[in-house]
Amino acid sequence: MALARLARSGLRRSGGATSCYSRQKDIGIEGLPTNKCFSPSLENVSRNSSLSYLPSSIRMTTHMSSWSRGIRTTPHHQYHNAERIVEESESEYQELSYPGLEATKPGEKPRVVVLGTGWGACRFLKGIDTKIYDAVCISPRNHMVFTPLLASTCVGTLEFRSVAEPVSRIQTSLSSDPNSYFYLASCIGIDTDKHEVYCETVNSGKLSHEPHQFKVAYDKLVIAAGAEPLTFGIKGVKENAYFLREVNHAQEIRKKLLLNLMLSENPGISEEERKRLLHCVVIGGGPTGVEFSGELSDFIMRDVREQYAHVKDCVKVTLIEANEILSSFDIGLRLYATNHLNKSGVCLKRGVVKEVHPEKIVLNDGTDVPYGLLVWSTGVGPSQFVKTLNLPKSPGGRIGVDEWLRAPSVEDVFALGDCAGFLEQTGKPVLPALAQVAERQGKYLAELFNKKIGEQDGGKALSAKDINLGDQFVYKHLGSMATVGRYKALVDLRQSKDEKGISLAGFLSWLIWRSAYLTRVLSWRNRFYVAVNWATTFVFGRDISRI
Amino acid sequence: MALARLARSGLRRSGGATSCYSRQKDIGIEGLPTNKCFSPSLENVSRNSSLSYLPSSIRMTTHMSSWSRGIRTTPHHQYHNAERIVEESESEYQELSYPGLEATKPGEKPRVVVLGTGWGACRFLKGIDTKIYDAVCISPRNHMVFTPLLASTCVGTLEFRSVAEPVSRIQTSLSSDPNSYFYLASCIGIDTDKHEVYCETVNSGKLSHEPHQFKVAYDKLVIAAGAEPLTFGIKGVKENAYFLREVNHAQEIRKKLLLNLMLSENPGISEEERKRLLHCVVIGGGPTGVEFSGELSDFIMRDVREQYAHVKDCVKVTLIEANEILSSFDIGLRLYATNHLNKSGVCLKRGVVKEVHPEKIVLNDGTDVPYGLLVWSTGVGPSQFVKTLNLPKSPGGRIGVDEWLRAPSVEDVFALGDCAGFLEQTGKPVLPALAQVAERQGKYLAELFNKKIGEQDGGKALSAKDINLGDQFVYKHLGSMATVGRYKALVDLRQSKDEKGISLAGFLSWLIWRSAYLTRVLSWRNRFYVAVNWATTFVFGRDISRI
Repeated sequence: MALARLARSGLRRSGGATSCYSRQKDIGIEGLPTNKCFSPSLENVSRNSSLSYLPSSIRMTTHMSSWSRGIRTTPHHQYHNAERIVEESESEYQELSYPGLEATKPGEKPRVVVLGTGWGACRFLKGIDTKIYDAVCISPRNHMVFTPLLASTCVGTLEFRSVAEPVSRIQTSLSSDPNSYFYLASCIGIDTDKHEVYCETVNSGKLSHEPHQFKVAYDKLVIAAGAEPLTFGIKGVKENAYFLREVNHAQEIRKKLLLNLMLSENPGISEEERKRLLHCVVIGGGPTGVEFSGELSDFIMRDVREQYAHVKDCVKVTLIEANEILSSFDIGLRLYATNHLNKSGVCLKRGVVKEVHPEKIVLNDGTDVPYGLLVWSTGVGPSQFVKTLNLPKSPGGRIGVDEWLRAPSVEDVFALGDCAGFLEQTGKPVLPALAQVAERQGKYLAELFNKKIGEQDGGKALSAKDINLGDQFVYKHLGSMATVGRYKALVDLRQSKDEKGISLAGFLSWLIWRSAYLTRVLSWRNRFYVAVNWATTFVFGRDISRI
Repeated sequence: MALARLARSGLRRSGGATSCYSRQKDIGIEGLPTNKCFSPSLENVSRNSSLSYLPSSIRMTTHMSSWSRGIRTTPHHQYHNAERIVEESESEYQELSYPGLEATKPGEKPRVVVLGTGWGACRFLKGIDTKIYDAVCISPRNHMVFTPLLASTCVGTLEFRSVAEPVSRIQTSLSSDPNSYFYLASCIGIDTDKHEVYCETVNSGKLSHEPHQFKVAYDKLVIAAGAEPLTFGIKGVKENAYFLREVNHAQEIRKKLLLNLMLSENPGISEEERKRLLHCVVIGGGPTGVEFSGELSDFIMRDVREQYAHVKDCVKVTLIEANEILSSFDIGLRLYATNHLNKSGVCLKRGVVKEVHPEKIVLNDGTDVPYGLLVWSTGVGPSQFVKTLNLPKSPGGRIGVDEWLRAPSVEDVFALGDCAGFLEQTGKPVLPALAQVAERQGKYLAELFNKKIGEQDGGKALSAKDINLGDQFVYKHLGSMATVGRYKALVDLRQSKDEKGISLAGFLSWLIWRSAYLTRVLSWRNRFYVAVNWATTFVFGRDISRI
């Protein structure tokens, strides 16, 4: 029962984390085994996921978010309800059933339930034929984040709203069709036998209510619940560092940055403290870390010099990476990036973080690095939600899928994006946690649903067993891009690390980078806003109001 | 000593409130004496403001913010430091002195210290000649808010950033001149004899440090510290209602509104609870209340119908006012507004609020009004900072000023905007708390400083005694405007309530309203953004991502 109690308490702690996608590479810090971030108690849960108080067929999932900032989207007042839930019995789960969300009847359209609102989920939702299916999307976030441009919002190059796209605009039937819905909720459990997902509404801190719970029956389930940032079990990361995966992370980084700039101008601040406040440290030299460093140095070179002239010489950016920066890029591009960042005043440092304190980092070699702002971008790993799902896993702990993105041990469950990886028996490698992978998978799966499954009347639960699914999902890498600031970017069009191909760096690449992203932005509205933001930043500089 | 302790504890509780301006009318709710919002303990403080532990010449100010939401900008961890401060002696205040902020020496430019970053302060800062003066601006907010357009940001018609203007762009010397500064800090005390202000830095919740304190010597002091919303001592207002005076208020209202819309769509919500969640109640029928109601009904008519089709029929807006709505407007315009709001689905209700609970309001007649969102806009009154300043007051409790906006009992202190009012002996009425009043006063005072005082070498402390200040400040009302939603607005060009003049209502007025505000927006950047926001809202509808 103690185990059940733990698992169920964990259920309360769901947060904004299920719907996060990143184009960050899975870059590990050398010397730190990645499985360190499993806490022992959670390992127990995932090994014993048949919980005693529920029928063993219900594969409950714990979803104890390991995000420090992600958790903020779920209010703390939910925690103390955990005890109450322990007393719940199966009969209560019966009560969670609501009209319109029960198993679909013959003659009704099959219901596809999608978990998440990231790249994969949204591309799937965009492509799904709503004449064939009813769609229900469940996520603690009602919008998709255009993650490649998130770093730009921290310093005011782009507005926050320009990189967020409401899911009900991506798939309008979610808000208008009578049997399609978007639910602002976290999935807290899946019963693959009963074809049901269990959900809990996301609440704000101000509500006196307990969160509502409900269940939704599915004909097909698409899990696109994303991944979580890797912290390698390093002490103090969750408490002190900022991640950069959600719009509210970018908002917090921006607020902190502007606060530090203003505090450092106040009289009575010692020189040492001023330098600390104005020292921005980025951990992880993947595309996100490099782009954020580049944006920061742009901001400092142009706007801080002008707007914070009194302290401009104390501002410093340090990028700490255990290995090479941009290790997935061509060697020539890596050298270019290193030189360019050095010239822009970004200090590149080799190092492995040992622990993080509120105002300093301690490196493995014993060095102290005082900081005012710490951004952590060392890649992503499986979320607690995924870890505790009782489904076979791919190497690396993601939900294991076959060549058609199915979880083959159960029926009617599909997974894609950062939370899914090919099973070892497929002989295919686990794909990197990139937006383009998730997007391509979403597109593939929507076509599979529309053409293969839909045309052969396999949409209903348990009716797609013998259907010929046709072509397997094949990923063709289109290349990688990263901006390094000051109108310079890298474009690497090689299909993989070891192949030959075109790679470019400089202003032309930067133009390619901007145009490519501008065309990738989902809606015309945001495309327009991104262009307007870029133009105004060019003309007027970045906005520095701390709102 | 108990008194001193109270006053000094109060010092800790400074917040974002000092810098707030509003164009709200001082509309009272009938039957509730406005002085109810003075708590007895604070009255004591203001009557006995010569505090025992400081020389009687130091006029300490307590600044116990009565804002529920305003307080959020100051972290709670500051509170428990209050006891420590009680032990501080005058000698510690000596230590708060920092180079460059001591009394100016002969040959140096005189230093003007401005408290606040609202309409009055910013207009003054914009106009002041920095060749004559060094300017130091102290405010817990680094930007001015274009308050007349704040209501539009709540529903996504405008972006938050479009209505905020960084103060260092309004007066660039604040960030670039060697002896001009902007400090993100709250003023916690003024010594008019020593010509010094005492300040405390604004901190974020995450810092382990105590806030820094410092003092700044002034040659001239301009108090433009704004007012606070009136709650008439009604129980539960501060805890449960949202005000609409700062960008973060608008952000919170928006988040709450979108959360309620999404929660109401979740299964398992009873019909009654759904109706409660979707009931938006606005208290106060002044321009802010009416404009917010109009924007809300626009949002509901256009965007909610499309994006939240499942619940669109449950959304309701109620505007509660004790007297007439828009009481300062022409009777014809009032009738027009009433009809238009009724047609737009806004329910107008006469009533006086007795108390506010987390999910319902109780009116004086005993009626319960359940609500999901409560916005409070019943006008503003003197802030705690102003109440406890040991300066003669105008009728209504503002800082009393003479015809040249001086506080005549002391030297070199000026006050303007919502925190200032003409002394009774001037024979002039206290001007309404309007943006145009504050702006005009800021402009007048900047000219007085540049031409009269500056030209006659009266800039330095104690040297303006015998200067002929020339023309008195005369306020000429240019008229009032308010939009009521759906491309309709009211324009009242009468100079006062009892005079005759032009008044318009309808689409033409709405065009005048938009053009007038577009030209009043301070910077080209924001003017451009406001225009772009309006255009995109027209073309694409409002954004509904909850970020």
